[in-house]
This record gives sequence, structure tokens and C-alpha cells, in this order.
Amino acid sequence: MRQGVGWGRLPSVSLSIRRYSTVKKLFQSRHEKYVDRTNKVTVVGVGQVGMATIFALLTQNVSNNIVMVDTNEKKMKGEAMDLQHASSFLYNGNANIDFCTDYTKTKDSSVCVIAAGVRQEVGEDRLSLVERNVEELKGIVPKLVKHSPRTIIIIASNPVDVLTYVTWKLSGLQKNRVIGSGTNLDSGRFRYLLSRKLNIAPFSCHAYIIGEHGDSCVPVWSSVNIAGVRLQDVNKNIGKDGDDENWKETHTQVVQSAYTIIKLKGYTSWAIGLSISQIVKAVLTNSTRVHAVTTCVQGEHGVADEVFLSLPCVLGRSGVQDIIRQPLSHSERNLFHKSAAIMTDIQCRLQL
Amino acid sequence: MRQGVGWGRLPSVSLSIRRYSTVKKLFQSRHEKYVDRTNKVTVVGVGQVGMATIFALLTQNVSNNIVMVDTNEKKMKGEAMDLQHASSFLYNGNANIDFCTDYTKTKDSSVCVIAAGVRQEVGEDRLSLVERNVEELKGIVPKLVKHSPRTIIIIASNPVDVLTYVTWKLSGLQKNRVIGSGTNLDSGRFRYLLSRKLNIAPFSCHAYIIGEHGDSCVPVWSSVNIAGVRLQDVNKNIGKDGDDENWKETHTQVVQSAYTIIKLKGYTSWAIGLSISQIVKAVLTNSTRVHAVTTCVQGEHGVADEVFLSLPCVLGRSGVQDIIRQPLSHSERNLFHKSAAIMTDIQCRLQL
Amino acid sequence: MRQGVGWGRLPSVSLSIRRYSTVKKLFQSRHEKYVDRTNKVTVVGVGQVGMATIFALLTQNVSNNIVMVDTNEKKMKGEAMDLQHASSFLYNGNANIDFCTDYTKTKDSSVCVIAAGVRQEVGEDRLSLVERNVEELKGIVPKLVKHSPRTIIIIASNPVDVLTYVTWKLSGLQKNRVIGSGTNLDSGRFRYLLSRKLNIAPFSCHAYIIGEHGDSCVPVWSSVNIAGVRLQDVNKNIGKDGDDENWKETHTQVVQSAYTIIKLKGYTSWAIGLSISQIVKAVLTNSTRVHAVTTCVQGEHGVADEVFLSLPCVLGRSGVQDIIRQPLSHSERNLFHKSAAIMTDIQCRLQL
Amino acid sequence: MRQGVGWGRLPSVSLSIRRYSTVKKLFQSRHEKYVDRTNKVTVVGVGQVGMATIFALLTQNVSNNIVMVDTNEKKMKGEAMDLQHASSFLYNGNANIDFCTDYTKTKDSSVCVIAAGVRQEVGEDRLSLVERNVEELKGIVPKLVKHSPRTIIIIASNPVDVLTYVTWKLSGLQKNRVIGSGTNLDSGRFRYLLSRKLNIAPFSCHAYIIGEHGDSCVPVWSSVNIAGVRLQDVNKNIGKDGDDENWKETHTQVVQSAYTIIKLKGYTSWAIGLSISQIVKAVLTNSTRVHAVTTCVQGEHGVADEVFLSLPCVLGRSGVQDIIRQPLSHSERNLFHKSAAIMTDIQCRLQL
Repeated sequence: MRQGVGWGRLPSVSLSIRRYSTVKKLFQSRHEKYVDRTNKVTVVGVGQVGMATIFALLTQNVSNNIVMVDTNEKKMKGEAMDLQHASSFLYNGNANIDFCTDYTKTKDSSVCVIAAGVRQEVGEDRLSLVERNVEELKGIVPKLVKHSPRTIIIIASNPVDVLTYVTWKLSGLQKNRVIGSGTNLDSGRFRYLLSRKLNIAPFSCHAYIIGEHGDSCVPVWSSVNIAGVRLQDVNKNIGKDGDDENWKETHTQVVQSAYTIIKLKGYTSWAIGLSISQIVKAVLTNSTRVHAVTTCVQGEHGVADEVFLSLPCVLGRSGVQDIIRQPLSHSERNLFHKSAAIMTDIQCRLQL
Repeated sequence: MRQGVGWGRLPSVSLSIRRYSTVKKLFQSRHEKYVDRTNKVTVVGVGQVGMATIFALLTQNVSNNIVMVDTNEKKMKGEAMDLQHASSFLYNGNANIDFCTDYTKTKDSSVCVIAAGVRQEVGEDRLSLVERNVEELKGIVPKLVKHSPRTIIIIASNPVDVLTYVTWKLSGLQKNRVIGSGTNLDSGRFRYLLSRKLNIAPFSCHAYIIGEHGDSCVPVWSSVNIAGVRLQDVNKNIGKDGDDENWKETHTQVVQSAYTIIKLKGYTSWAIGLSISQIVKAVLTNSTRVHAVTTCVQGEHGVADEVFLSLPCVLGRSGVQDIIRQPLSHSERNLFHKSAAIMTDIQCRLQL
Repeated sequence: MRQGVGWGRLPSVSLSIRRYSTVKKLFQSRHEKYVDRTNKVTVVGVGQVGMATIFALLTQNVSNNIVMVDTNEKKMKGEAMDLQHASSFLYNGNANIDFCTDYTKTKDSSVCVIAAGVRQEVGEDRLSLVERNVEELKGIVPKLVKHSPRTIIIIASNPVDVLTYVTWKLSGLQKNRVIGSGTNLDSGRFRYLLSRKLNIAPFSCHAYIIGEHGDSCVPVWSSVNIAGVRLQDVNKNIGKDGDDENWKETHTQVVQSAYTIIKLKGYTSWAIGLSISQIVKAVLTNSTRVHAVTTCVQGEHGVADEVFLSLPCVLGRSGVQDIIRQPLSHSERNLFHKSAAIMTDIQCRLQL
Repeated sequence: MRQGVGWGRLPSVSLSIRRYSTVKKLFQSRHEKYVDRTNKVTVVGVGQVGMATIFALLTQNVSNNIVMVDTNEKKMKGEAMDLQHASSFLYNGNANIDFCTDYTKTKDSSVCVIAAGVRQEVGEDRLSLVERNVEELKGIVPKLVKHSPRTIIIIASNPVDVLTYVTWKLSGLQKNRVIGSGTNLDSGRFRYLLSRKLNIAPFSCHAYIIGEHGDSCVPVWSSVNIAGVRLQDVNKNIGKDGDDENWKETHTQVVQSAYTIIKLKGYTSWAIGLSISQIVKAVLTNSTRVHAVTTCVQGEHGVADEVFLSLPCVLGRSGVQDIIRQPLSHSERNLFHKSAAIMTDIQCRLQL
């Protein structure tokens, strides 16, 4: 012990201090550590999508309280260690990163993200894929709700729209509490592609894609606008076959995005991870901002069935607070109905 | 209404829609708005310090949920409007900024900051100032605790150390839940001044000032370090009279800071506002980072009385979780004792 | 010096080290400090608006390199010290905050903000105010351009539109390099007020106010939209006298905002400071996002004269990159023309 | 075109507008788009480390201007598309993400990160690995320097210390401009593990690991401190064999981290990506903060040879501005010398 420094100079205290451990000597404890659950997020599935989501949540300061769940404990432990070692490089610096296979540590999560699920096999039809993923969800959703009965669930697994319906059914939660990542990503891709043609920031390209996430998604050309200027008022054929500037191609590229990226790098991860991080942020900060996500669209645009598709929604701490009633052109409305019919058909054939 | 767009094409719905107001037509409501209180901060006092604190809380994304309390409703309303108009320039964009004179809207605040209080009059002695501010606190603290019985209170009013003691007494809260802004600001000033001499970032200048906020504050030269290198090991006279490089002057400047700035611009605001914002952030994010703040130091460094002074503390959701037991040199310890004696003397003379 | 620690154990080095000062002992210098000017911002005028701007620039991480200019050196020095003391509470932590009265330290600023100028006296007419502020600008603009010939100038002083024209004339800079803060603030206020009526985030309320900043500003109701849904398509009378929901009142409140706040707190500061910080950020990050700012509108909406008014513009490193050609309704267009005529009239009467 | 809206009402203009494309109609162009290179970062190698680095740079707002270089154009294109699609989910929202195989697009990068290189094969000795990576670097470094002669290069490839030396030799740049990621990550892991034992934030655990990145890295126990309290003053055996609390195990875990994570998930990515992002940020923001990175240590701690190892350094726009002259204990110094000897040996055997 150094000379001339206070420790050795507190005779009445020092004897007892010497029996203490390093930690006890260093601190006078005032109060037990508090477990803060206000921004706790559980992510089920630590594949490429789950991990990109978690990394985005941490680096964008959306949450510093993450629990991972997966059946592959080995990989999950490796991912957790790798993230924990990054704590001092994160702004918050006090991230709590934990994992389990049995859902016990997910208790009282504010938000649960489901990024687990099997992938389509070669030659497998859509219904078969859905059925296999329904089986996965049966092993996930009830456990999540058991430990966090007031949570918001965000589904990222595909086909996301029907799986959002399934999750809602399995969860017993109110409709507003089950959200699919839906066309938030498609809308982001659309804005990016528009921004490149217009040479302005994606943030200033206001455009939504609605309906089914993926092949049959519907670009709402009638409402695409820059500073309130509808592009359709500038080019009346925009998005249509008759447009000699071929803006329609933008939507084609959106639809092909996932296929193209999977062909090139094997999977998609960064954009979907950030898309989910954005939705989680809207919920945790009670942002009341508008995002296109999968929700129950019964009663909207003349849809009679209890199907789940994407529409622009106001998101907040209670999940989907409002659906924006966007006017659609005839063709947009027809395409939306087609998506709804496909969903109804699949849902009818599922055993829940 | 525009031709060829969906609204007019939903005959079964459109009639009823026409009876709706604009808002009802625009949204299909899913769920009532949720009131999120997880980061609610009340600030009592909308003078220069209170307002700089609130502006820092909002612009640094520490909270987007602020309630102001003041007796000057007119000024308070003006400040609230000015901040509300800034909502769309803030990152969160959904700030909830409210105010009241009767504390009702402060309900369930996670943190309450007290930046109210009278200023020293010419010729007024310290005790008289304290007594007048004790009267102020008697009108504030019980109302805060009534509406937010589980809050953390942070005191910024001066003389901050004795007023933290008074607030603790008046509040009936556990010791860990009442925190004075203390020498967090003095430490920040010390680090800045060291950083200019060393030509490196203040973040990399590790230095604490402890004891009383203000004139008798104690610079812990024995622990000042850069990357773990104690400056005292490089210059054994650092901070002492015998030092021909006169580092002691750094501390003198810290002590004179407030006086100098008040002489130049009339008050201090930005640095104290950011200092408080940092403390609030440590609490709300459960950061467990170390900050020098005013807390009950009984039992530390041989202090027998129940007095409040600054020491490095671990801050989190429960307030002060631990005090760091920093070894002090003889002179540092003596100076700390002197501060404690002054506090004991004042406290004894107060009528609470 | 402590026993058993390396310093004393380097005999070949230690002798020379002992002759060094503390700083030289602590560091082996590798390279001279680098002066980074990529985000240097000069702010002329350290009144309420200038200071709120600087505090926003620092706390929102827009710049960590600020130079203040004012004739009141005393106040300016106080403000600078207060901000410098906050360095270690700012995320970047290495802010360079400097000041001068003679513009020498403004050299090579990327952006210069002018927040100086006299206020309207009781009974003073508009032209007289403009003339007095033109005299102020004659003492400021040439000095800014002399030291930073490639800078972008942002004017916040009022009446902002005509002073932007004057600054452009005095500067000799290209049109795109002189920007008035204009109706960026009015638009922010409009969005906030709409957001309260709609119960969603201001970020999701897309609305612009154009024309003159202040009394004669023009709300572009024809383009106000939520998720691309034009409110005019939901309520065809929105913003007009015939609207029984009285949305027009929103614009009235925007126009009265400054008067109301000045009556309540004496001046406006926070919202205008953040508005300017947002414009500076758009420039420094080359964001290519759309903001309503004052620019030369000659040729737009049938305006023939070289007048400066606000329109939605794409902002980037070169300043105003594009003006968005927003279609206007008849009445919006007429109001815009009225503003233009007022500007022409004032400009003609100025001696530059 | 809609009735009653301004576009159709500008007869003198409208004819020519109709010949314009959508883009030309929408914008009045003011100034060419500006290419902003102030924060341009090139990353060579789009494997797990390179991609985690890029994702961290974008999500932590360190840079919005990224160029990737790799020989695998297919994967690189997929990664670029995936990131570009995320633009509207990033705070800046205007990220410029590009790629090339021939280095042309890397022109004028402020920082270049090298995350490329071959991995150790089973049974391969260290020298053979180094030699193969030297060949890689010969194909990379001269091209980087050719297009960005004033860049800062940060090396992440392993063995990082000798490869930093090699890069310096191949680059012809000043010593301060070539930085290895070195023990910044080891130090981060050390702080995290200490923080778990002490139950405080990693940010408040001040500790450095120096020397060689990996197996022979040296924990500087003599300077580990919490709020300036040296743990060695609390527990004199800390980090040594005689410590019955076995803190030494913390260092053992740091050394084993990479091996453990690779065994569990196949590679390390998140922590090293964030470590590099932190170093890039220190350079781009001219932070002058202290980080442990690989630099030329000749003349430090008695090292005579021109070898590269990690020491705490002040980082800024010029790269390594200063090395902190940290006193070491005998054993720390001996271990550092051993690392230096290993480096000298390898360097002598290389053909550059």
C-alpha cells in the first residue's frame, strides 16, 4: 500500500476493510442494483436477421437490454460473448446482453422480435413452408406470452403476413400488440431507389408499399410525393406501363431485391435488421410515427376477412395505434384485394 | 374529391365516412394513446439553469417527456411553446412538453430536478440564504414526493450540498434517491482545463473534484491520471505550492469559474444544464457509471456526521448505488473534513 | 516516485526525462496537432438566438468546432467559458469553442450563421428596421467572406427574407451559397400544431409553409399530407374559411407564435436555434434533404423579380442544390405573389 | 393533371415544362451535386470483420460515405445492395455506399481500413501466415496510397502488429498515418470482464492491455483504476499468482476470447467491427482521445528496434498524435520486451 495515502490512515476502519474483498473495499454499497426492464427486448432466432437486428438495436441506442433465445445454444453463446465484448465501444456502455434456450430470462420484455423459422426448400410450395413455420411458432409464441403477458410481438419470419396472423392467434394478445415487419422494408427499398433517380435523400422521398411483403406487394404510386408534390401530378403515367421514363422498374427492383441479394451474398440481413430496429424504436419511444407494417386489415379498403397485410400505421407503446386510411387508385385497390384473397385462402387451410 | 381515387369508390363505407371529422376519416383507431412514463422528467424552476437543463435533456435524447413547474406561469408557458415548436427538429420528434403550477402533471415522474431557489442578496450571509431556500424547498419537495413517491430527486439549487440534505429530510425518501449535482460540474471544468494543458480530449483526462461544490471544493490530485498514469508520478509536486509548472492554478480557475462567468454574462447555464442532463441520463439508462455527486458521506473518510458532500458515486435507476472509496492524501482528507465541519455547522442551525 | 514502477527503471532515458516538463514526460509526440476545419461553424451574434443555435449545434453533434463573433466581448467570453466547461458532458468531448471580435478566427469556416442585428423599436416602420440592419450586415458579411471565401452563409436575423437578399448582394457569393432560415421554423411550428390535432408525431405530418417568414407566410394546404393522404382530399375545405373544423386556426397560431412567445418570455430562442442547427446539419452532412428556406425565387411560380422568399429546397454541401417546384392552388399562388411584391418594393428602396 | 392547381396555370412556363422529364419538372436545379469526401472511408475486405465494421460505421453515424473493395465482386455487390436498401433507416439517411474491385472509387478517402487477408491453415506456422498476408498487402496498400496519398490506414488483419509494420513499409506514409487495431479490442474485453466483477459500467473501468494483440498481450494491472483508485492499492496481489481472488483469470479470458468465440460461432465480428469503428471515429472527429492501438514503439519502454506493438495513443485527424508514456512494473515491462523481441524476429525474416 502506498505511503501517505488515506487508506492506511483510517485505523478504526482499516482493520475491517482488510478482511473485505477488493470489491467491498472499493465500494460503499448504497442500494442493490436495479433491474431496468423499460427497454427490454427479446429476440428469438440468432441467424443473420436476428443478429443484424440486435446489432442495430445496440448501435442505434434503441435498447441496451437484450435477451436472445435460440435452440442452438453454442452459436448463441458465441454471439452473446462477441456482443458483450463490444460494450465499451457502445455509446450507452452498459448493455445487458443475455441469452437462454428456455425463455425464462425473457420475463417482462417490452418487445419480443421473432426472427426464427425454417427456410423454403427447393420445390416446396408456400403452404408447406407456412405449415412448417406454424409448428415453429407453436413452440415460441406461448412461451413468450407466458413470461411477458403485456409484450408487443414483432414478427420478421417469412411469409411474414400469414405468420403475423398465426402469431396473433397463438398469442391471445390484442390485435394492436402483434405487428409484422411487413412492407416497412419494401417501402425503404422503394424510397432508396426513388432517391437515386431524384438525387435527393431517401428521407425526403415519401412513398409507401402496402399489401403482402414480397412478390405481390403494392406500390402506392398515387401517393408518392416529394415535399407534397405528387409525382403522378408531374408525370401522370408514373408507375404505369405507358410511362416512357419507366418508373415502374423501381417497383420491379424492389420485388426482386431479396432474390437478387440472396443470389449474390446468400441471405439478406442489414436492411431487414435496421427495418426491425426502426419498428422497435417506434414502439419503445412511443413515437406515434407512421410505418407500413403488417396488421389486421379487416374493414380497410373493403376487405371483409380477418387477414393480416401491411398498411401505414401509427406505432407507439401500445403497438399499432391507428391505421392510416390511404385512398387507393382502382388498380392499387385491386392488387390489395388480390393479396387479401391469397391470405384468406392460406389462413383457411391452416390448423391452429 | 379527386376522380378515380379509392375514397369515392367505397359506397358502403363512404356515406358514414362523410359524417366523420377529418381525423376520423384519416385514421382507423386501433388502441387508445398510451401514456409512457418510463422517462418522465419534472424540472422545477424555468430560470436559466432549468431551461438549459431541459434543452440539454431534449437535444441529447435523454428524455422526450418533460413537465415544467414554476410559479411564473407566463414565462413557463412561453418556454413550453418555444420548445414544443421545436419538436420536429428533435431526433425523437415526439416530445411531450407540458407545464403546471400545481404539480398535478408531475405524477409518476422517474426523475425530478429542482432548479428553483432564491439567489444570494448583496450582504446576505450564507445561513440566511440557506434558510430562505429551505422555505422554498418546503413548498416544493413534499408536492413532488406526493405525486411521484418512487422518484429520484436531483438538486441543482445552491448551496447545493446543504440543500440536498434538506431535500432528503423533507422528502422522506431513501438516501440513494436524493442526489445533488454537486461537484460533477467542478470535475467537468477541471477536466476541461487539464485537457487544454495536455492537448488531449477532456474524456481522456481522468480527474475528480470532491467535497463541497464551490469555494472549498477539493481537487483529488493524488488520483488525476491519463491512461492510468498518475500525473503525481510524473510531477510529484503537481497541484502543490512547490510546483514550478503551477498546475494548482487549474483548481483556482475551477473555483473562480462561476464568479468569472457571472461577472461576464450574468449567470451560468450551459455547463450546469449539461451536467444535470448527464446525471439524469445516468439514472434513466441505469448506466452504473461513476460521477461525482452530492450524497450522504457519513462513514466515508472518517466523517462521523450525517452530512451531504460530493464523492464519486455509481449512478443507476435506484440513484446512488455505491460510493467509490477513493484513497485521499493527508491534505485532501483534511480539506474534505473541513467541508464536512462547515456542513455540520449549518445543518445544526436549520429548522426543518 | 513510486517504488517498483517503470519510470525509475529506465536509466538511459530517465535523466533526460527529468528535464522535461510534465507534458513532455507524459507524451512521446508523434505529430503536430491537426486543425480540422471540415465542420467549422462561425456564429455572428451571441444573443438568445445565437446561443441557442450554438448549444443545439454542440448537443446535437452537428459541429464540434465553433467560433463566435460579437462586439460584446465580455458577454461572448462568458458564453464561451460556460460552453467550454461543458466539453466533457458533450458526446464528442473534444469541442473547439473559440471567439473573436475581429473575424480572424473565422478563417475557413464551412458555414457562417448570422444571428446578429438590431430589433424593431416601438413605432419604427419595417423599412427603417431593414435599413438599420443593412448597416449591420455591411460590417459583417464582407469580413466573413474575406476569411472564408468558399463558405455557406445562413441568415437568421429579421426580416430574414430581405436580409438574405442583402447578404447575397454584399457577399458576392453564388446564389446557392446564401440561405435564409426563412419558413423552416414556420413549417416546424405548423407540423407541431397539426400533430397535436392528429395525435401523431410531427415527423409524420408533412406540411410546408412558404413565402415570407412571419405575418404573410403561406401555408400550402394543398400539399399537407399524412402518409401521402392529402388532408384536402379528406376535408375539401381544410384551411379555408368554410371549414367547420376550423383548421385555418392552425396557420393563425403559427403567425402569432413569435408575438405570443415574445409577450410571454421576452424573446424566442429554442425553436429558432434548433431550426438553424437543422439547416447547418443538412449542409455539413450533404444531406440532400428538403427544407423550406429563403432563396432567390426568381422564375418560380411566375415571380419575375430577383427576390428572396422561402420555398422547399434540397440542401447539401453546396447550399441550395434544387428548388422543389411545388404546384400551388390559386390562392396560395396569389399570396406568394403578394409576398414577392412586398419584397421587390423594399429591395428597390435599399441602398446597397 | 388536377384541376385548380397551379401547374396548369403557368401558361408561359408550362409548355416547356411538358417537354421536361419528371425530374426536370420537379426541380429547379441550382447547383451541381457536391461530392463530399470529408468522411470518406474505404474498407478493403467484405468478410465478417469488414461488414461488421461498415455496419457499425453507418449505424453509429461515424461516416455516411463508404467504399468497399474486394476481389469477390458478387458478394460485395450483394452487401452493398443490402446496405443501400437500409438508407432510409439510418439517421443520416443519405449514405453513399459504393464498391469496386480496382480501387478507382477509393480516391481521396480520409481513412482506409484493411480487413482483408488469408486465415491460418491447420498446421501452418506463424511466419508462413505472415508471408502469405504480406503478399496480400502488396496487392492492396500501394493501390490505396496511389488513390489517397494523404489517407490514414487502419489495419485489422492478423497478425495485426507485424502487418501494421508491413503496411507502413509498403505505404511510404509517415508513421503516424498507419495504425493497427491492436489491443483496442483486448482492452475493451478486459474492461467488460472487469465491469462484470465490479458491477459498474465498462466506461468506468479504466484499464489497458498493451503489447501484441492476442496470446502475448500484456494487461497493465499497475494502472487499472476505478475513479482513480488503483485496484493494486486495494489488493496488492491483483493480477498476480498470489491473489486469492484470482483476478488474473480476467486476462486469461481476454486471451482466450477469440478462440472461444471462433469455436462457438465460427469467427469474431461484432466487437472487432465496433473497435475499428471507434478508431475511425477518433480519427474523423479529431477526437484526441486515448486508445490502445498498434504503432511504432521504438524508443518506448527501452525498445530499440523499429517494431510495431500497441500502446495507449492519442488519436486525431493526423492519426497517432502522441504515445502515452505509461510507467510499467518490472513484469509488465519484461512481457512487453518479449513481444518486441518476437516482432523483431519475424520482421527480420520478411522480404518486403
